[in-house]
Order: sequence, then C-alpha cells, then structure tokens
Amino acid sequence: MHVEVALIQDLVPAKLGAEVSAVVIDVVRATTTVVSALAAGCEGVTPVGDVEEARGLAAATGALLAGERGGLPPEGFDLGNSPGDFTEQRCAGRPVVLTTTNGTQAVRRCLGGRAVWAAAFVNAEATARALVDSGADEVLLVCAGSGGEMAADDVAAAGCIAGSLALLGAASPGDGARVAAALFDAWKHDLKGLLGRSLSGRKLLEVGLGGDLDHCARVDAQPLAVRLDRAGAFRPV
Amino acid sequence: MHVEVALIQDLVPAKLGAEVSAVVIDVVRATTTVVSALAAGCEGVTPVGDVEEARGLAAATGALLAGERGGLPPEGFDLGNSPGDFTEQRCAGRPVVLTTTNGTQAVRRCLGGRAVWAAAFVNAEATARALVDSGADEVLLVCAGSGGEMAADDVAAAGCIAGSLALLGAASPGDGARVAAALFDAWKHDLKGLLGRSLSGRKLLEVGLGGDLDHCARVDAQPLAVRLDRAGAFRPV
Repeated sequence: MHVEVALIQDLVPAKLGAEVSAVVIDVVRATTTVVSALAAGCEGVTPVGDVEEARGLAAATGALLAGERGGLPPEGFDLGNSPGDFTEQRCAGRPVVLTTTNGTQAVRRCLGGRAVWAAAFVNAEATARALVDSGADEVLLVCAGSGGEMAADDVAAAGCIAGSLALLGAASPGDGARVAAALFDAWKHDLKGLLGRSLSGRKLLEVGLGGDLDHCARVDAQPLAVRLDRAGAFRPV
Repeated sequence: MHVEVALIQDLVPAKLGAEVSAVVIDVVRATTTVVSALAAGCEGVTPVGDVEEARGLAAATGALLAGERGGLPPEGFDLGNSPGDFTEQRCAGRPVVLTTTNGTQAVRRCLGGRAVWAAAFVNAEATARALVDSGADEVLLVCAGSGGEMAADDVAAAGCIAGSLALLGAASPGDGARVAAALFDAWKHDLKGLLGRSLSGRKLLEVGLGGDLDHCARVDAQPLAVRLDRAGAFRPV
C-alpha cells in the first residue's frame, strides 16, 4: 500500500486516480464532528457546501441542520460544529446535514477516487484498519487546512494514521507521509498543545470554542471507520 | 520575526508581499550547488530557467555553463549540478550560469519580495544569522520540491533554518514552520538517510549521482549567506 499525504487540499490532483482511497482530515472540527455524530448513533452525515443548500436539504429530509461559518452556527441551525454537542440524546437515529468552511470542500475534491473516508484523531486506528481491510493500494490522506492554508492539526492526524498504517503492514510512505509522521511523533504527548497553536485551533480559540480542542485531541476515542456512501452521506463501515 | 514555510513552491502566493524575505531551498541540489560554487570563489551564480537562454548568456558573458535536465548536464555544458564539482580550481573568479529543473522556477516565484536568499543545509545557520542581521520581519522559507511535488529534503532544511532562527531570537513560527521543524528534528542524526529516501534523492540515485547526497547533507559546512543581487546573480553577503 502506497501512502501519501496532501498537506493541504489544494495539493490534491484535479483528476484523482480511480484507484485512490482518499481520507479527508479536518481535525478542528469537521471530520471529528462527523465521526462523533455517527458514534452517537446518528443515521448518516451529509456534507453540503452551501448554507442555503444545507437548509433546503435538512428541511426536505427532516435532518438535523448543523455546521458553522466563522466557527459559529448560522442562524436557525439545530447544532453548530462542536463534536461534543452531538450526543445520543440529540441525534441518535436522526440524519444530519453538515455544512462547514473547509471540510466540505475537501470532500468534493476527493470524489472520483475509489472511496472517500472521513478521519481525525478520534478514529485514527479504526480508519487505518478499515483501509487495510478494504484492500486499498493507493491511499491519499487529505489535510483540509484552514482558509486555503495548511493547518498543523490536520497534518499531525495524517501522520498518526500513516503511523498506524505502517504498524499494520507494509505501507510505503511518500515524502508527505514522512513529514506528517514526524510532526505527529514530535507532538503526540501534547496534541492539545499542538491544536491550540495550529491555525485552525487559534481561530477556534478566538471565537471562544477552545473547549472543543479537548475532544478533537482524543486519539482513538471513537473506534469507528467512516466512509461516504453512494447517496453522499458519511456512514460507519 | 514571523517565519513561515511554503512546503512546496506552488504554495508561494502569486503576488508576494513587498515585505517578504524569501529563502529558496533546493537541497538536492540547486541551492547546495549555488552555495558551494560561491564558497569556492566563483564570481556570482545567475539562475536561468531555459537551457538555450543559459547557453546564450554564458556565451555572451564568458561564464561557466552549469546545470542539469533529468539530473544530468545537457550537452556541451562545462559543469553539471554536482556541488562537489565546483572546486576553487574550476570556478574561482569565474561567473557561473546555472539552469536546473526546480530551483530556478522557485527563484522566479520569489521575485517581488524584499529579497531572495538561497539556502540549504550547508549554509543553514549563516542564512538564519543574515536574515536576522538584515532586519527581516516576514520570512518565507520556500521549498522548491521536485517536479511539482513536495520533497522531504527541502522541508527538513527549512526546519533546520527555522530552528536556527528560533535559537537566535523571537521567531514566531507558522504551522508550516512547525511541521518542517519536526521533520528536521526527527531526522537530524541521519540526514543522509532522509535525503536518500526523499523524492529528489531517489531521482538522483536513479541517475547514479547518489554520491552528491553526502555533500548536500552537511549542515553548516559552508557558512556563507547568499542573496540575489539586482543583476539577478546570487552572491555572498
């Protein structure tokens, strides 16, 4: 299995190879939220780019409407993008429509490959195991970044998953995977420290949601692999 | 001083801010060669994008014609791009015209800022000191990469320089600088090992020039800061 990391989503090739299993990583917070919502029993999480489109889809399907712009939930949303808010009580059995600033764009860039997975620290090892079980030969870990810039939290999670893949077998790392793995190793005993210093984390602290970083920094807390289905919703595998 | 790293030259903003001091890094081998040629006493190294343009300029100025395509010197060139070939005997007092695949493009992307420096492991600390002495407020370390992809050798050298800047004073690192610093720290005791595994190093091994990696991996072997002058030639500062 060849493992490469796109350190920012802009580096994803315009035409993704049909054999590529893409793993979208937006630690703070979109993919942490997707995994947390599914771990809490929600019926599926559909990522949507546009706020109005998200409102329309949620209204039509009876889904919970969740997400953020500038870190905060737009008016009338049921939930923001704080992973801890997706409790069993609030979302078990319900579909969720999620619109966020960076993660949704990253998902769109990854369509056209073999599969699109959603991953973060919370499900790093589960994702690695599922990739191996799926028979993936070409894995591209895609760091969403923040506003077009690289974010260290995503790169570190990519390094964490690349490390898990290496432990599971004969993963051959590209240069990006080696860079990401070094970042994770350097910070693995203080991930919350890294998240607080990262571009995405700093933006979250600015809007008073720094508490979410605790949740985002929990490695393997939600052992759930998550993949986009044909209907465009993330579901557990 | 704010220090950021463009992990690949494609991430350099199209319009570079006038206050940005850009540092071009192409460890294997363009900037290692530039520094080595100047350390050997050559009169200046002019980076040129096109092979024919390089031939013409060298013919017109009596400069030594050096460089590579696919790692090897084009026909009729005086020198390739092996830093060790730039000896005092061959180039002291002579101007050099250098055309390479990745480094020259990176230089072009960095025009428009406050200054363009050329750096590699061989002059990492000298570069950091010169940046501080120059009063730079905004430093962008630009990793040339290889054929449009990120190369770990350049990222590690950026991390080495970022680390030197941090030691010298109050450098505030961006996410890219943090990522690069972690890579350098992880590999600083086996830089030749990293270079041999990196995209650029592997390409060099394929054309039988792996011996150059010894030279490229020597941290601070040539304590010379190098800047592009107004005539478009790199010179020692």
